[in-house]
Amino acid sequence: MGGQDAGRRMIKKYENVIIEGVEPELDCGRYPIKREVGDRLEVGADIFRDGHDVIAAVVKHREKGKRKWIETPMEVVNPGLDRWGASFDLPENTSYEYTIEAWPDEYGSWLREVDKKVEAGQNVELELTEGRELVEKFAERASASELHELSKRLKKASYEEQLSLLRSDETRELMYRRADRSTSTKYKTLEVTVDRVAARYGAWYEMFHRSQGTEPGRGATFREAEERLPEIASLGFDVIYLLPIHPIGTTNRKGRNNALTAGPDDPGSPYGIGSEEGGHKAVHPELGTLEDFRHFVQACGENGMEVALDFAIQCSPDHPYIKEHPEWFKFRPDGSIKYAENPPKKYQDIVNVDWETEDWENLWREWLDVVLFWIEQGVKAFRVDNPHTKPFAFWEWLISEVRESHPDVIFLAEAFSRPRIMQGLGKIGFNQSYTYFTWRNEKQELIEYLTELTQEEPSEYMRPNFFANTHDILPHILQFGGRPAFQMRLALAATLSPTYGIYNGYELLENTPRGEPGTTVYYADSEVYEYKVRDWNKPGNIKDYISRINAVRRENPALQELTNLTFHNAPNDNVLFYSKTSGDNIVLVAVNLDPFATHDAHLELPLETLGIGEDEEYVVEEFISGRVLPGRYGRYFWVQLTPKDNIAEIFRIRKAGAR
Amino acid sequence: MGGQDAGRRMIKKYENVIIEGVEPELDCGRYPIKREVGDRLEVGADIFRDGHDVIAAVVKHREKGKRKWIETPMEVVNPGLDRWGASFDLPENTSYEYTIEAWPDEYGSWLREVDKKVEAGQNVELELTEGRELVEKFAERASASELHELSKRLKKASYEEQLSLLRSDETRELMYRRADRSTSTKYKTLEVTVDRVAARYGAWYEMFHRSQGTEPGRGATFREAEERLPEIASLGFDVIYLLPIHPIGTTNRKGRNNALTAGPDDPGSPYGIGSEEGGHKAVHPELGTLEDFRHFVQACGENGMEVALDFAIQCSPDHPYIKEHPEWFKFRPDGSIKYAENPPKKYQDIVNVDWETEDWENLWREWLDVVLFWIEQGVKAFRVDNPHTKPFAFWEWLISEVRESHPDVIFLAEAFSRPRIMQGLGKIGFNQSYTYFTWRNEKQELIEYLTELTQEEPSEYMRPNFFANTHDILPHILQFGGRPAFQMRLALAATLSPTYGIYNGYELLENTPRGEPGTTVYYADSEVYEYKVRDWNKPGNIKDYISRINAVRRENPALQELTNLTFHNAPNDNVLFYSKTSGDNIVLVAVNLDPFATHDAHLELPLETLGIGEDEEYVVEEFISGRVLPGRYGRYFWVQLTPKDNIAEIFRIRKAGAR
Repeated sequence: MGGQDAGRRMIKKYENVIIEGVEPELDCGRYPIKREVGDRLEVGADIFRDGHDVIAAVVKHREKGKRKWIETPMEVVNPGLDRWGASFDLPENTSYEYTIEAWPDEYGSWLREVDKKVEAGQNVELELTEGRELVEKFAERASASELHELSKRLKKASYEEQLSLLRSDETRELMYRRADRSTSTKYKTLEVTVDRVAARYGAWYEMFHRSQGTEPGRGATFREAEERLPEIASLGFDVIYLLPIHPIGTTNRKGRNNALTAGPDDPGSPYGIGSEEGGHKAVHPELGTLEDFRHFVQACGENGMEVALDFAIQCSPDHPYIKEHPEWFKFRPDGSIKYAENPPKKYQDIVNVDWETEDWENLWREWLDVVLFWIEQGVKAFRVDNPHTKPFAFWEWLISEVRESHPDVIFLAEAFSRPRIMQGLGKIGFNQSYTYFTWRNEKQELIEYLTELTQEEPSEYMRPNFFANTHDILPHILQFGGRPAFQMRLALAATLSPTYGIYNGYELLENTPRGEPGTTVYYADSEVYEYKVRDWNKPGNIKDYISRINAVRRENPALQELTNLTFHNAPNDNVLFYSKTSGDNIVLVAVNLDPFATHDAHLELPLETLGIGEDEEYVVEEFISGRVLPGRYGRYFWVQLTPKDNIAEIFRIRKAGAR
Repeated sequence: MGGQDAGRRMIKKYENVIIEGVEPELDCGRYPIKREVGDRLEVGADIFRDGHDVIAAVVKHREKGKRKWIETPMEVVNPGLDRWGASFDLPENTSYEYTIEAWPDEYGSWLREVDKKVEAGQNVELELTEGRELVEKFAERASASELHELSKRLKKASYEEQLSLLRSDETRELMYRRADRSTSTKYKTLEVTVDRVAARYGAWYEMFHRSQGTEPGRGATFREAEERLPEIASLGFDVIYLLPIHPIGTTNRKGRNNALTAGPDDPGSPYGIGSEEGGHKAVHPELGTLEDFRHFVQACGENGMEVALDFAIQCSPDHPYIKEHPEWFKFRPDGSIKYAENPPKKYQDIVNVDWETEDWENLWREWLDVVLFWIEQGVKAFRVDNPHTKPFAFWEWLISEVRESHPDVIFLAEAFSRPRIMQGLGKIGFNQSYTYFTWRNEKQELIEYLTELTQEEPSEYMRPNFFANTHDILPHILQFGGRPAFQMRLALAATLSPTYGIYNGYELLENTPRGEPGTTVYYADSEVYEYKVRDWNKPGNIKDYISRINAVRRENPALQELTNLTFHNAPNDNVLFYSKTSGDNIVLVAVNLDPFATHDAHLELPLETLGIGEDEEYVVEEFISGRVLPGRYGRYFWVQLTPKDNIAEIFRIRKAGAR
């Protein structure tokens, strides 16, 4: 029968109210959810208790590290399901804590009983006495002068005066503020990471610095690469993402087209990081000096863009760390260093650090130092190479350390791996993620994947960055589909996800794979292994198209958000039709997924969302072509999407006469 | 850059493996899930880590209170989703704790690498040296003599011998047992409540003791009620649930048909508990003595049934507690006791205890004492009246206190309230729950509700008890639908849910409501307020039908389970078609939901589940009629369900020739 134990458990009596089903909440509060500056966080919960007494509940929030909570009263949003809700603003680039507190609203219960009895014409003399006693009890507990005052007035008041006083908004408010919370239920504390808007919205241009020059046989310098910036800015990009800029090792350096041995003039892969000239904190001398890099960052800023650096934790066999910190590497029983391998394959140009080293604390701190070093040079975004092959705990620590002093820094996880791995990286703190978009071409798989990313739990912590290509991914659809495919995949990336990117050369429709088309996703003669000079104005380029799409993104706030995506019916397996809504900005997009043939469809318009009646006239404005179609009626809008002229249409619809 | 703080966080490095998405898990482990003796608990989780190294994971379980964990190795069940699983038996009526532990499998990783290289024909001399070093490391750490032994043997072995020794199952097993778990990830501890099977499966007969006699104008005694037991047992019931058996108050006693004042001979509602003759620990003298009650319990046992008592925490104004413990009740400012009310209505025959009393600990203990008192008399099941108007924390405490010494006791929550309230009572420990079944008549709403109860989260903690009627619920469909409706609702209750019940009189098709049919769910001239004598063999009764249905339940294990329900296609809105499967016992049920008309449908049989090919002959055996139909073929089976003869069919299907 319990004894001491029973007494211990009895303490629970004091929590009369149950709070559960709290949203958003990630893995029982283990990880923060993510939002961006300017958002409003909607918090919901099932809140209930036994019997019929009234409950009061608040959402509490505070900037992380601050002591004082700010309270927002919750309201019932679905009585049948005991669902409550409230929301609060997220004005700063920081982390906020939030939680819920709920308690029995003793005065509220009294009020409701009296209201019902008064309504039924019953005398409430006794209830008024109970009400006065409540006021006295609350006044005593809180030593609140207004309540003492009220108590005195009530004693002298008539029946009618008491009724009016006790039921007034002022008294309700006073009593609410002095409520007894000793039996309140306090939910666990949750956290929301609030990033700057660029974590959600931006167009990325992956630039290989080496190939930005005009002189064959050598790589461009930062100063030369700067000359490309005004044009890239004019195409509407927000971020210049650079492949690794560090000295490149010579031992086992890879040659052209990933050959096992390099020729004497081959520059090597920028991922073979480290040589006698320095490691992860150095700039490749070919590119210029650290000063030149800072100048490049500044030039980007002047063009309205920022720089994202590639952060690849791996070393060439010539990296200074190997001599300076042999304890950070694994050596074989024969004394040789352990190269990267994926048995039976060996990668003898790359050495991985040994995460199991006894000296792991210093190893971790060194990588943090590297990141902080580049932040000092003006970098606020890092594209992290293969983060999923380094410990999750390391990243969680590193990102949170950086965040403490630099909450504006963005880490993009370049992980192409299994879903749980990619999601896990988002949960532990990566601000953005590469996705499977690059491999999703069919209508149904696009709908399913985008629904997961924008409507399901991953939307709380994973922000997609849709790359249409990268330096080592030339998707088959681009290899075969040519110009229409390039336009189509760009339009999809840029309108499905608020953040997207392309790798330089996309605008020139470069699509020659290494080997037979369709057998590999690598570029032929990739500049990753050799010098390259391009004609950036090559005939047939799609720079105008890119520039138009990016302009449409800037003009339409709806395209700058993630979770506002809705798919609509288009009865054709080759036509994808969706909309994005932000306030009164509603953008509709129809895309022909087949670059080889014209397809048409009667799109089923979301007239209710558009605020247009079945029999009202409306005007369709297509953003890419600038075409305006007046005099349309009804739910079904016919489009014909041709590979040559309009593989994608982005439009808005307004009532005829409206602006 | 962290300093001490950074050091603290770094500790996380040691957890390399992530465990998440654990199932079953209820509200982050706040509440136990439920199972029954003999079940096997399947545990699943997403388990992954960075990189490609091998992981080892186990499910651990133990009886609650025991120290030693029992480990079951987990296996990957879905590699793409990193899903792992394992299961263990639940042999005892107790509570078990379970959790998951996972760690990097260093030796497993080494083995996989060597296997791949050997397969590719590479020399693994160096790897063998590394393998020997691993054996030595493990031997050292664990001071394991077998490993020291192995290490010695390896030193003298040839290349081939080493390969064979290091890759043998014995070595794998030895190394697995000595694995380094210092960096393992340990999941939080979860709990499963294992009840006796009767918590899931049983047919309940709600008996009003008062009306079991043969003499008009007075109530039956327990001894007289005993005479009814053989017949009720022969109908196939497992539980006799009695309305409150305690002395009934006289102050403000309700008269016939819930009249405000009672006539001199009116017996009063059994829920007006307590008089000068005693309170919740007393037996109404009209029924006999406590000794008679114990005899009744024993007689039930002899008939293969058990007794469930009504536990209603409320008092008549004459209850001894009011004099003995005035501190447990609320008094108004004028000195009068506060009656139950639902403003503007007052219930002056009932006084509720004041859960806010300062003396709540003794109040709680007293109710626990009441329950323990009846357990002493042989009661193992309680039907708790309106539990949702008493604190959740109180029930959680009371049930867990009882469970510590009497894990076989079953509490059934009689709460008809909002979904979260009813679910909440299941979560905090009630072993069974009343449900909305009584109000669900349409095909779609039955499918939705049953899917929630059997396939979704509530199935982890809420066991339905489907009552077709109760002493104060005569559903409209019974009022209008007559005999076919009584058969149909019984068949539904008894086959959709493993536990179901009826209130006495159901077998006699009693369906006269108080007032106009369809305006109320109360019985006319309810025995709750007056004496009643019935002819239990009244012509037209459906006792044979009930007895047949209960026999079918006993013969078919599939009907004794909850989560094994599947709905199948029957293209008729009035025909519900479903199956239940347990091992090779597959029961199919087709029910006509319209008691007024014949309906037919081509049922789409689950041939794959039945193991019957599209072109194979099968035999259909209908259990209620005993009809056998040989020589059937194909996926569609036509049934015609007539109100008069076969409003429901319960059948099994076997291959022609099979037994």
